[in-house]
Amino acid sequence: MSTITAVDTFDIRFPTSLELDGSDAMNPDPDYSAAYLIIRTDAEDGHEGHGFVFTIGRGNEVEAAAIEALRHHVLGRDAEELLGDMGAAWKLLVHDSQLRWLGPEKGVMHMAIGALVNALWDLKAKRAGLPLWDLLARMSPEELVSLVDFRYITDALTPEQALDMLHRAEPGREERRVRLLAEGYPGYTTTPGWLGYSDEKLARLAKEAVAEGFTQIKLKVGASLEDDIRRVRLARETVGPDIRIALDANQRWDVAEAIDWVGQLAPYDIAWIEEPTSPDDVLGHAAIAKGVAPVPVATGEHVQNRVVFKQLLQAGAVGVVQIDAARVAGVNENIAILLLAAKFGVRVCPHAGGVGLCEAVQHLSMFDFVAVSGDKNGRMIEFVDHLHEHFVTPVDVRDGCYWPPSAPGAGSEMISNSLENYSYPDGPVWSGASASLTTQH
Amino acid sequence: MSTITAVDTFDIRFPTSLELDGSDAMNPDPDYSAAYLIIRTDAEDGHEGHGFVFTIGRGNEVEAAAIEALRHHVLGRDAEELLGDMGAAWKLLVHDSQLRWLGPEKGVMHMAIGALVNALWDLKAKRAGLPLWDLLARMSPEELVSLVDFRYITDALTPEQALDMLHRAEPGREERRVRLLAEGYPGYTTTPGWLGYSDEKLARLAKEAVAEGFTQIKLKVGASLEDDIRRVRLARETVGPDIRIALDANQRWDVAEAIDWVGQLAPYDIAWIEEPTSPDDVLGHAAIAKGVAPVPVATGEHVQNRVVFKQLLQAGAVGVVQIDAARVAGVNENIAILLLAAKFGVRVCPHAGGVGLCEAVQHLSMFDFVAVSGDKNGRMIEFVDHLHEHFVTPVDVRDGCYWPPSAPGAGSEMISNSLENYSYPDGPVWSGASASLTTQH
Repeated sequence: MSTITAVDTFDIRFPTSLELDGSDAMNPDPDYSAAYLIIRTDAEDGHEGHGFVFTIGRGNEVEAAAIEALRHHVLGRDAEELLGDMGAAWKLLVHDSQLRWLGPEKGVMHMAIGALVNALWDLKAKRAGLPLWDLLARMSPEELVSLVDFRYITDALTPEQALDMLHRAEPGREERRVRLLAEGYPGYTTTPGWLGYSDEKLARLAKEAVAEGFTQIKLKVGASLEDDIRRVRLARETVGPDIRIALDANQRWDVAEAIDWVGQLAPYDIAWIEEPTSPDDVLGHAAIAKGVAPVPVATGEHVQNRVVFKQLLQAGAVGVVQIDAARVAGVNENIAILLLAAKFGVRVCPHAGGVGLCEAVQHLSMFDFVAVSGDKNGRMIEFVDHLHEHFVTPVDVRDGCYWPPSAPGAGSEMISNSLENYSYPDGPVWSGASASLTTQH
Repeated sequence: MSTITAVDTFDIRFPTSLELDGSDAMNPDPDYSAAYLIIRTDAEDGHEGHGFVFTIGRGNEVEAAAIEALRHHVLGRDAEELLGDMGAAWKLLVHDSQLRWLGPEKGVMHMAIGALVNALWDLKAKRAGLPLWDLLARMSPEELVSLVDFRYITDALTPEQALDMLHRAEPGREERRVRLLAEGYPGYTTTPGWLGYSDEKLARLAKEAVAEGFTQIKLKVGASLEDDIRRVRLARETVGPDIRIALDANQRWDVAEAIDWVGQLAPYDIAWIEEPTSPDDVLGHAAIAKGVAPVPVATGEHVQNRVVFKQLLQAGAVGVVQIDAARVAGVNENIAILLLAAKFGVRVCPHAGGVGLCEAVQHLSMFDFVAVSGDKNGRMIEFVDHLHEHFVTPVDVRDGCYWPPSAPGAGSEMISNSLENYSYPDGPVWSGASASLTTQH
């Protein structure tokens, strides 16, 4: 038996706005940040659980406060008991009746729960000596179903239906594990497409992406139609007809504007249009999907929980489901969303980038391939070549593919030097050496 | 010219869980709380702007931190400029590109924006020497439309359509103002119906409610069907056939369960079924509305923003729109929701109770009657006789009606003694006199 002895929180911020990396139509100057936590126990193995919420700067301290508001649920608890029933652990956090008022199941509080849940999974995977994707892919259908809270989704997916799907996928697991290790999991890159980049930089990075083996790139759009037409045409001319080009509007439009704007970019052969409008607008996405067909609509990085994903699928509003490792309440809720997507036969292409999102979300796609959908066709994980050096086990992306991590854990552990250097506002990057940053931010 | 010199925050909590006031199927032991703020200026008039987020205990400190994250947007600003264009002030707060990531437009951050926006309105109304409802009801249609952010709702309501509706209502404003002052605005009471109360207490309070002039009461349901049938039957026997009985499930059910459960209570003549399922589930509410017709479905106290209200109306999912003064981003967004409800011809019956929600939301219904919908038929404001003594201008509810406040401001100012006594965790109620509370909470 061991006891959880600490839940330490950190406010980590990277001054990315200085380079306009990550700039898009709604986020002109993000400082990629993480409200980060470490769970410690008194076990002799010394394993820690690491997790985080990704934010883009201001408000990172609010997320840290939200994580602290959850601390009393796990501090002093028997670690084996908590990690032994992760479905119960999830409900313990999500169903706190007083904290629930602050959502329910959305926004700051829900994301904080996700960070804590993911940190528990990191600890559980390290203790098991397995990478998270493999830990999940070895669980029985019954164990997997027990992780999911089916409240509010039984009109689309019952526990019995989920169990049946998982049982049907079970015989092929071993074969797909072998394939995954041999083939990797496809990725696509957003590196060329940030809105703040010049045409020259866009073309250069698009060429590099193709040379690196990516078969899809993504461009940010939505600020100026004229600029978008020029940039998309330039990208198409640069990469040729065989590379897919996806577009991302980052919620910039209303329904009619989205349909019109996408119609004008469609001639350049668009792989999907991502976040055309508010992530809350299920009916709006359904109208847009109808209006821009056959261009598929993608969304998810800001979709708050399984209830909204359920509706997007029920309404036929999305052709691509974009799960995010740090938006919903962690691994458990993402399994619910993977099951929903599989039930509706819609492909999942995770959102990533930011800080640590690539490291975290790859586990979910790989688990999905081995044990849930059994499918990689048309599926790929977003990749942005940025800030990976801050992680203990950075992603291994080569030849346009994510290669399955073998290190035990959930991939979410940042190196301790980075935790110290980028601590806000007192770490050396913010307080000392770069005093000019402090005034700018 | 005057400058905003301070935005002070307070963590105020009332130990209501000791009495089970406010208990329902999802919230067994709330401690009604307020993340509270005061805006101060250097103007000689000495007016302050007061606003708050209502919470039910734990996490109130997270809301206070969220309010503090907004402080830099108003501190040091020219008060006249900010208050002179409240539409711009709203956008300044909601469109902060970094903070937006924490929602967008939902949960902790959006509620904090609501508190700050409402505090600005309180200050503006005090400076104008008018109660908020009357300040709004004197604004021109053009001024009112300028308060609303139409982003994400133009597929249901354009600025031009809103302007047209407001112009059509303008000639009747004076007559309705006179009627409002003479007749009051109907209320209904939830005081008898909390789930923690005994049958005897329920019956006694129901009788008292009728004696006090209320024509509708509301009961909490959803924990046990057997208990619900007994309690609803008892309430019906107690109040007779002429008093409306509404039911509130506080999000307890999935879709099929809601339809079944409400079907079994429908014989007792139900005025509406409130929050049958997740507030995020537009399609679920639409299915329930169809399944329980002709019982109307009501929701709104947890509906996160105008985008979800828009869809509930588009889908025919609600027969009663329940705005809340402290859930969405304040007065401006509630005006958007009032306009949407008027466009779709759906009645608005605000959620209230908690701490200060009655004091705040009455202004919105009264403004709606005078200047937007022009209608009081079937409309009423929830009333719970609880914690009003902590406000400088408590509601005046008599003969089953809310009587229009005449004091300048938005009704949101708590008396300073209460701010001191109920301050958490250091105020005397929590730290000293009642040491037993501290251990219990």
